[in-house]
Amino acid sequence: MSLIVMKFGGSSVGTPERMQLVAQRIIERQQEGNEIVVVVSAMGDTTDDLIDQSKLLNPNPSAREMDMLLTVGEQISIALLAMTIEAAGGKAMSFTGWQAGMRTDAVHGKAKIADIQPQRVLDALKSGHIAVVAGFQGTSEAGEITTLGRGGSDTTAVALAAAVKADLCEIYTDVDGVYTTDPRVVKHARKLNEISYDEMLELAHLGAAVLHPRAVEYAKHNNVQLVVRSSFTKNEGTSVKEEAIMEQGVAVRGIAFEKNVARIKIMGVEDVPGVLANVFGALAENSIDVDIIVQSGTQNGKADFAFTVSSNDKDKALAVIEGMKEVVPYREAVSEGDLVKVSIVGAGMVSNPGVAAKMFSTISSLGVSINMVSTSEIKCSCVIAADKLNEVVVALHTAYGLDANEQAFVGGPAERR
Amino acid sequence: MSLIVMKFGGSSVGTPERMQLVAQRIIERQQEGNEIVVVVSAMGDTTDDLIDQSKLLNPNPSAREMDMLLTVGEQISIALLAMTIEAAGGKAMSFTGWQAGMRTDAVHGKAKIADIQPQRVLDALKSGHIAVVAGFQGTSEAGEITTLGRGGSDTTAVALAAAVKADLCEIYTDVDGVYTTDPRVVKHARKLNEISYDEMLELAHLGAAVLHPRAVEYAKHNNVQLVVRSSFTKNEGTSVKEEAIMEQGVAVRGIAFEKNVARIKIMGVEDVPGVLANVFGALAENSIDVDIIVQSGTQNGKADFAFTVSSNDKDKALAVIEGMKEVVPYREAVSEGDLVKVSIVGAGMVSNPGVAAKMFSTISSLGVSINMVSTSEIKCSCVIAADKLNEVVVALHTAYGLDANEQAFVGGPAERR
Repeated sequence: MSLIVMKFGGSSVGTPERMQLVAQRIIERQQEGNEIVVVVSAMGDTTDDLIDQSKLLNPNPSAREMDMLLTVGEQISIALLAMTIEAAGGKAMSFTGWQAGMRTDAVHGKAKIADIQPQRVLDALKSGHIAVVAGFQGTSEAGEITTLGRGGSDTTAVALAAAVKADLCEIYTDVDGVYTTDPRVVKHARKLNEISYDEMLELAHLGAAVLHPRAVEYAKHNNVQLVVRSSFTKNEGTSVKEEAIMEQGVAVRGIAFEKNVARIKIMGVEDVPGVLANVFGALAENSIDVDIIVQSGTQNGKADFAFTVSSNDKDKALAVIEGMKEVVPYREAVSEGDLVKVSIVGAGMVSNPGVAAKMFSTISSLGVSINMVSTSEIKCSCVIAADKLNEVVVALHTAYGLDANEQAFVGGPAERR
Repeated sequence: MSLIVMKFGGSSVGTPERMQLVAQRIIERQQEGNEIVVVVSAMGDTTDDLIDQSKLLNPNPSAREMDMLLTVGEQISIALLAMTIEAAGGKAMSFTGWQAGMRTDAVHGKAKIADIQPQRVLDALKSGHIAVVAGFQGTSEAGEITTLGRGGSDTTAVALAAAVKADLCEIYTDVDGVYTTDPRVVKHARKLNEISYDEMLELAHLGAAVLHPRAVEYAKHNNVQLVVRSSFTKNEGTSVKEEAIMEQGVAVRGIAFEKNVARIKIMGVEDVPGVLANVFGALAENSIDVDIIVQSGTQNGKADFAFTVSSNDKDKALAVIEGMKEVVPYREAVSEGDLVKVSIVGAGMVSNPGVAAKMFSTISSLGVSINMVSTSEIKCSCVIAADKLNEVVVALHTAYGLDANEQAFVGGPAERR
C-alpha cells in the first residue's frame, strides 16, 4: 500500500463535470490500494472574482485581510470536492490549511511553510477517508491566516507529501508532462519520462506553468518523488526525482528560454575593492533582480562589466547606476533591450565536454551573434537578439537529438496557482 | 468608554453601497469613544449561491462538509467589511469563528456555543482596532468547523457580548425596532422603546425576524443589554433588558400571533397514569412540536384532551395518535386546521387582574369563537379561526391602548440569519 498525494489545480476542478472527473480519478487511485491525500487549488475564476469584489470596496487592502478573503477560494474547493467524492461513493474529509497543520511564517501574501503537523490528515487516512486539503494556505504561530504566494498549491502538496512521508506526489495539470522545450516554439518537442530535480529547476521557465520552482526545491530538499501528469488523460507523465536516467545517452535534457531580457553595460569602472558589491547591492535595494553578470578583464586599472535584468527593469536599473556615479566612478553606462536568454539543460553536460561548444557553433551557423554567455555544471545559457529566438531553439532542439517523430503536446492554457 | 458589540445581518451588507454605509456607521460609533466588536452574517445571496453549487455535485452532502462550505460566506463578509473600514480610514481586523475563540459542540449544522475564549478579539480592541467577527460559526473541541443553526449570527453577537463583557449589544437590521404587533396587520402598530427579555421571548413570533429567541434567551441568561435598531436610519430602536419600564402604565406590551395552527382532540381516553406521557412522548419522538395542551375534566374514568401543533404536522400527529390506540385506548381522535393563535404579552399582566378578561370580551364582541385558551404570568393566548385573525388583532391593539397616532413602520423584507 502506497501513500500518494494528488494535487489538482484550479482549472482541473473549474466546472462540475471536471470536478466529477477528478473525484472519479481520486477514487480509482484509492481503489488501486493506495491511501490518498488530495491538495486542491481554488476553482477556476473564484480568486479573480473575490479580488474584483474587494476592489470595489478598497483598491489597496491590507495583506492580512486579503489573505482572509482569498483563502475561502480553496475552502470552497475542498468542501465541494469532498462532497463530490461522497456522491460518487467514496469517503472524504476536507481540511483547511490550519486544520491540516500547515504552519507558516507571518508574511501575509507570500508566507513560507514553517512546519507541518498533519495529525488530523493521518487520522483521516487511518479511518479510510480520502483527505482533501486546501492548497496555498496556512496559519502563523499567532493563528493568523496566511497564503503561500507564488507556487502555493504545488508547494503545499510537496510539503505535505514530505510531512506524511508519502511515497509519491502527483501534480495533475492540463498538460501531460514536462517537455524538452516549449511545444509552441518547437513542434517536435517531446515529453520527458524522467528529469532530475536540478534539471527541473533549470528548466523552471519552461516548467513554471506545470510545476513551480519553489515546489521543486522543496521536493529536492526532502527527497519527495514527483510526477507531473494530465488531469484529463491517463498518460504516464514526467517523473521528477534525484537521479533521472538520461534517455538515449544524450547530454541535454531540454531547452529553456526566457524572453524580455535587457543588458546593461558599465564601461571604464575604477577597479577598487567593493565596486561590484556597491552596484549590485544598490540594484537589490531597488528590488531589481540581476541574472547573468560578466566582468571582462581589467585595463589600466579600469574594468568593463555587463549584466542582464528583465526588460521591465531596464530603465530603472540604468537610473540606479547613473545615481551611483559619485560612489562608483565610471566612464559610460549603456543599456540594450530586445534580448532573450536561451539555455540548454542536462545533468550529463558535466561529463561531456564539447556540449557547450556545440551550442555556440549551432548558433553561429545561423549567423546569430551571442551577446553574453553563462554556464553552470548542468546548463549553458546564451543571450541573443529576441527576433532570433525561435530559429535558435528549433536548431538546438535538433542538434541535441531532442526531436520527437511526431508532435505529442496536449495543451491548453497553463495553470499558475 | 463603552464596549459595544454591533451585529449586522446579510442584507445590511448585501451591496457595496450598504457595506460602505455600515462601515461608516461603525467608525462613527468608535469615534464617539467606544470600543467596537462587529459581528456580521454572510452577504445577501452568498449562502444560497453556495448551496446551489453544492447541489450540482451532491444533492445530499454530509453536514460536516456543508459547514466547511457555508462558513466561507461569513469569512468573505468579515474580510470585505474590514477592508471597507480600512478604506474609510478606520483600523480593523477580521476574525473567523475559531480565531475569535467561538467553541461549540460538535453537532454540524446546528451547533451550540460551548464557551468563548475571545483573547484575540480583546487584543485587537486594545490595539485600537475594530474587531470584525464572523457570525454563525465556531469550532468543536476537535477543531471541526461548525455552524450554529437557527438564529446563528444573533446568538454569536450576544454570546460574544457576554464573553467580552460588553456594555451593549446592538442588533442592526432592516426594521427600526420591535413593534407592538405586526405593522402589516395593524397600521397603527407602534415601535416599542423598551421591552423585557421575557416579553421579547413571548413576542418571538413577532420578533423572530429581527431577533432570534435563542439569542434573547442567551441575553437574558447572561444579562446582556440588547438594542434592536435599523442599519439605515439613526432612529433609537428598541431596548431589550431585564426590567423594562412599562409605557403609559398599560399592562400589555404587544400582540403576537402565530399562523398555521392545527388542533387535535382525543376523546374518551382511558384515564390511567402515564397516558399524557405516552402520547406526548410519542409525538416528541416523531419530532412534532406540541404547543398548547388542554385537558378537560374526567368523566366516568374517561378524559378528553386537546393540543395544538403546526398545520404541517397535523396529519403526521393524527397518524401517531392512531398508531397508539392499543397502548392508550380512546374513543375518537379528530383534527382541525385553519386556526391561529393570538397572544397578548406584558410583564404587567400578573398584577393587573382583568387583563385576560378584556381579551375574551373583545374577541367575543366581534362574534368570534375562542377554541382554546392558554395563559402564563406574562401572556394570554387564544386559538381562533384563521380568517378572523386580522380583525381580532386590530381590535385587541386598540382595546389595550397600543395604537400610535401615526404609522411609524420602516419596513423591508426581514432578515433571517
